Amino acid sequence: MLLTFLGTGDAAGIPVYGCTCPICTRAKIERRFRRLPCSALLEIDDEHILIDAGRMDIADRFPVGSLSRIFLTHYHMDHVQGLFHLRWGCNTSIPVHGPDNANGCDDLFKHPGILDFSQVMKPFEKQFFGDIHVTPVPLNHSKMTYGYCFSIQNSRLAYLCDTSGLPAATLSFLQNWQPDHIVLDCTYPPQDSPPRNHNDYTMVLNLADKFKSSNFWLTHISHKLDLWFKEQLKSLPHNVQIARDDMEISFSRN
Amino acid sequence: MLLTFLGTGDAAGIPVYGCTCPICTRAKIERRFRRLPCSALLEIDDEHILIDAGRMDIADRFPVGSLSRIFLTHYHMDHVQGLFHLRWGCNTSIPVHGPDNANGCDDLFKHPGILDFSQVMKPFEKQFFGDIHVTPVPLNHSKMTYGYCFSIQNSRLAYLCDTSGLPAATLSFLQNWQPDHIVLDCTYPPQDSPPRNHNDYTMVLNLADKFKSSNFWLTHISHKLDLWFKEQLKSLPHNVQIARDDMEISFSRN
Repeated sequence: MLLTFLGTGDAAGIPVYGCTCPICTRAKIERRFRRLPCSALLEIDDEHILIDAGRMDIADRFPVGSLSRIFLTHYHMDHVQGLFHLRWGCNTSIPVHGPDNANGCDDLFKHPGILDFSQVMKPFEKQFFGDIHVTPVPLNHSKMTYGYCFSIQNSRLAYLCDTSGLPAATLSFLQNWQPDHIVLDCTYPPQDSPPRNHNDYTMVLNLADKFKSSNFWLTHISHKLDLWFKEQLKSLPHNVQIARDDMEISFSRN
Repeated sequence: MLLTFLGTGDAAGIPVYGCTCPICTRAKIERRFRRLPCSALLEIDDEHILIDAGRMDIADRFPVGSLSRIFLTHYHMDHVQGLFHLRWGCNTSIPVHGPDNANGCDDLFKHPGILDFSQVMKPFEKQFFGDIHVTPVPLNHSKMTYGYCFSIQNSRLAYLCDTSGLPAATLSFLQNWQPDHIVLDCTYPPQDSPPRNHNDYTMVLNLADKFKSSNFWLTHISHKLDLWFKEQLKSLPHNVQIARDDMEISFSRN
């Protein structure tokens, strides 16, 4: 099982348009420091699963037949904007699984084209796609949002973005499920009070302390967080890493 | 006055995802045959005006301060999708002028960020931006859509996309105004009956015949039209050209 981060930025991305902070200035010069719309590719045998679709080069990157399906965490634009062009394709159909949201985003449901939105996922209901099991878990966000728990044999990955903390039922599920890896929204540096729709670093530390045997990968990162990491952060807990675009997590079947 | 075509494709663009027609196959190999989301840049002295914002590289292409304003023909996604990322910028504000449409597109109006949508344009009401005069004219499309008539001294350019034919009042205005150049929606090859939301080539010929002293530049082109041009078309009328991405129209002040 291989997870590749295709994007690790928040909605503004890095560089932020017009920003002259050291993080954005560096990213303008060196592309490897950019953070594109938050998304990832999960590869398991012949299954190639896209998690969120905010990148605009999906058509170029994934020729017809190379994407098995897409899981959407939610219908905010930075997570779905890559679908508006893709839908007008031909000679193929791509299953797109997401939360039960009657509106979707703009006219995606009215004109789905080659995108098949028919298989809506229900919270905590495990579904099977070949050898892989997928369980959606509700998150705390301004729109209905799912995290996804992927497992194959005994390998377990939870992708939890966008969220502010975790609903009690989701926390309880995860504590029982014991993921090997948790990809987690960490948009902001420590704030005076918990943000409404995303985690700050304080909230992430709190969760990392609850899952001491899980490896955490922080994503959906703002330029303010990158700047804080650069200027303030002394060290990360042993089980926490900051994700970067194109970084890979490879994990074997136990 | 210089107009650069930044994109000349329909909503699917060229290549169409998954398509194996000769046009799409060629465009996959040679980037110069691609057609990106329909948009253009108009440069007049210090005014740099973006017409439609479907391209996703606006932030990279236009550093802060290099865009004076944006004119939107309408709020379909392939004409506005580049704004969703741009809006989260900082240290600047960009005026965005468009038709009076209460909904806009998705949450653009709810979260405009650095985009200033306050200056809505009214049909047939000329506005002045420095030395340039801009008059919006209504078009025939599934959403309220404006063409824009740009003039500086005696040079006149009409940008008319997306549209199926022209409303009588717009036709009358243009016949009186006598543009030097008309950039026109030509999405389809000749159809059995006029399409509802875009021009086919038959409708374009009909208009070109009405404006014999105007130069026509065809845009919003589908792969089907490019294929028809390649296989069927013998010659274009003397005043009609097929636009391509990156093509420029340079016109002097008379």
